[in-house]
Amino acid sequence: MVHPRVYEALSQPVVGHLDPYFFEIMSEIEESLKVIYGTTKGITMVISGTGSAGMEAAVANFLESGRKFAVLANGYFCDRISEMGRRQGAQVVRFEKPWGATFEDQEAADFIRREKPNLVAYVHAETSTGALQRGEAICAAAHDVGALVVADCVTSLGGMPVNADLTGIDIAYSCTQKGLSCPPGLSPMFLSPRAVDWLNQRTASPRSWYLDLKLIRDYTTASHRYHHTAPISMFYALHEALAVILEEGPENRWNRHLRCHQAFVDGVEAMGLALHVPQGHRIRTLNTVRVPAGIDDAKVRARLLAQAGIEISGGFGPLSGKVFRVGVMGPLATEANVEFLLLEFRKALVAEGYRS
Amino acid sequence: MVHPRVYEALSQPVVGHLDPYFFEIMSEIEESLKVIYGTTKGITMVISGTGSAGMEAAVANFLESGRKFAVLANGYFCDRISEMGRRQGAQVVRFEKPWGATFEDQEAADFIRREKPNLVAYVHAETSTGALQRGEAICAAAHDVGALVVADCVTSLGGMPVNADLTGIDIAYSCTQKGLSCPPGLSPMFLSPRAVDWLNQRTASPRSWYLDLKLIRDYTTASHRYHHTAPISMFYALHEALAVILEEGPENRWNRHLRCHQAFVDGVEAMGLALHVPQGHRIRTLNTVRVPAGIDDAKVRARLLAQAGIEISGGFGPLSGKVFRVGVMGPLATEANVEFLLLEFRKALVAEGYRS
Repeated sequence: MVHPRVYEALSQPVVGHLDPYFFEIMSEIEESLKVIYGTTKGITMVISGTGSAGMEAAVANFLESGRKFAVLANGYFCDRISEMGRRQGAQVVRFEKPWGATFEDQEAADFIRREKPNLVAYVHAETSTGALQRGEAICAAAHDVGALVVADCVTSLGGMPVNADLTGIDIAYSCTQKGLSCPPGLSPMFLSPRAVDWLNQRTASPRSWYLDLKLIRDYTTASHRYHHTAPISMFYALHEALAVILEEGPENRWNRHLRCHQAFVDGVEAMGLALHVPQGHRIRTLNTVRVPAGIDDAKVRARLLAQAGIEISGGFGPLSGKVFRVGVMGPLATEANVEFLLLEFRKALVAEGYRS
Repeated sequence: MVHPRVYEALSQPVVGHLDPYFFEIMSEIEESLKVIYGTTKGITMVISGTGSAGMEAAVANFLESGRKFAVLANGYFCDRISEMGRRQGAQVVRFEKPWGATFEDQEAADFIRREKPNLVAYVHAETSTGALQRGEAICAAAHDVGALVVADCVTSLGGMPVNADLTGIDIAYSCTQKGLSCPPGLSPMFLSPRAVDWLNQRTASPRSWYLDLKLIRDYTTASHRYHHTAPISMFYALHEALAVILEEGPENRWNRHLRCHQAFVDGVEAMGLALHVPQGHRIRTLNTVRVPAGIDDAKVRARLLAQAGIEISGGFGPLSGKVFRVGVMGPLATEANVEFLLLEFRKALVAEGYRS
């Protein structure tokens, strides 16, 4: 759900892409993103494309032909970033686990120390599975072998702490339409000082001109040299969405999401349902509930939408028909909404033949 | 200027990126774009990025390492597309002319027949110079040697006819914030049947996953298979902007721009000023006026902004300080506005020392 203030900001009159007012908005966005990403040392910037454009910017700027790219693969978006790495001409090596599993510190570190890659990627919060991946051991091992680390924070940013500095992440990207409660269209990124140094020392230009982070940074902060015409309206919206978050307070927001997540988990377990991801490895904003035996998940979802106007998602890939994916995030994440959701979810399940 | 109806559309509640309503909006956008691009044979689609993302999509999908890319280079955006071509690993050959010049049919055709490239690019309407490039002879020569043709229509689409089918263009891209009078953020593209065939026969994947036209087309029209989360709000805006254009009627809109262009040209010539581009080669929506000797163009522009709230641009690159760039497009392109602009422009010039 997008906050009404954000819709209002979206429809304000556009200014030019080199207007000082736009650069002021951009600068405030970057400062707010530092708070949300949990960094005082790194920089933040915004890509004029969706979350996948941020993913491609990470890959296209930090990989080149012949570099080794290690992916901790446990879901759909790990596959996507692997494919992007291959297209850049990198040698992609993967540590594969079933969708929904996570990597223990020791095994992740062993994999990285053995492979000695140039770049490591993991997905902090996997939208396709509901699994949360710890990054500290991954980052430490990567830095030991001289690699940089990319973290996909598409589903975590704004809904739970990312702690980029503390974790040791070098490159992160996200989207606007999940934890930030803004319409889709931009990708907020984070770069550590180590990543910035690497970029500055890179001699060959990335294949992508549109996603060339050095050129974009030059446009938005340094010389304000024209690169592309930024989608001004989307920046207004992101600016307002971040203001809403900072007014609530990031800690308060994250705790609110945690409380709602816990209430949801307690509720579905009380119905006799099981979560797909073990406790301690779950995303706060997106819950994956196992579809009980004999129940058609698509029918339950259609009924829930028709009876209560609540849209939840199904699983896909290996989890197709096996899980419900239930987002509890943004302005909608309140205890009252969770209670209503649980009531209606139960009704829809029972109507489709579920007996707990 | 963005139409108030477009701002209103922009702030409508977002739906999911796989919602049937969104695909309906998308399908209507594609149909409207066919009218504006002047095609009944080709297809249209929309890239989730700005005009430069459309340019990169054209280059990244239709070039690959070792292919020969011929650019008719007479301005800033010809340089940009050349650079994108180099980054894709293509062999770039250029026919260079001074900024503001255009290519005669014979010399353009000779260049293409001599170089025998795989892809040819020209800029239909060069924002940096105000020059309009005819495409018929370029396309005919390119097809003779088996090449495809890319036309940059960033400044022409919606403000003047593109006539993609009649001209023989294979690939075209544009932006939303010029002739379409919508905020920036999307890039509407056109592909001829020949371009679609080439894409379908291409075996290697493009380096870019985000701008992979086959995957995008699969998402928006064919299987609706998830590719990226489209910036829904921007699509609402584009949908409404196209509705406004079709209600006016494309011919009426183009004639309105032509009348206003002519009124502007007559007015500045009556002041003793000269246009940078010769008659018959001028863009209707963007006029380049030579800065008279001894006049500081930046001061004139600042004065015009302060005294009348009218923003015009300066030249850049080789035309820096040498031309004013005056956009007369969209809802602002009316005879009354041109009259007001001429009056205020003259006052600002005279105040800065101009004597005609």
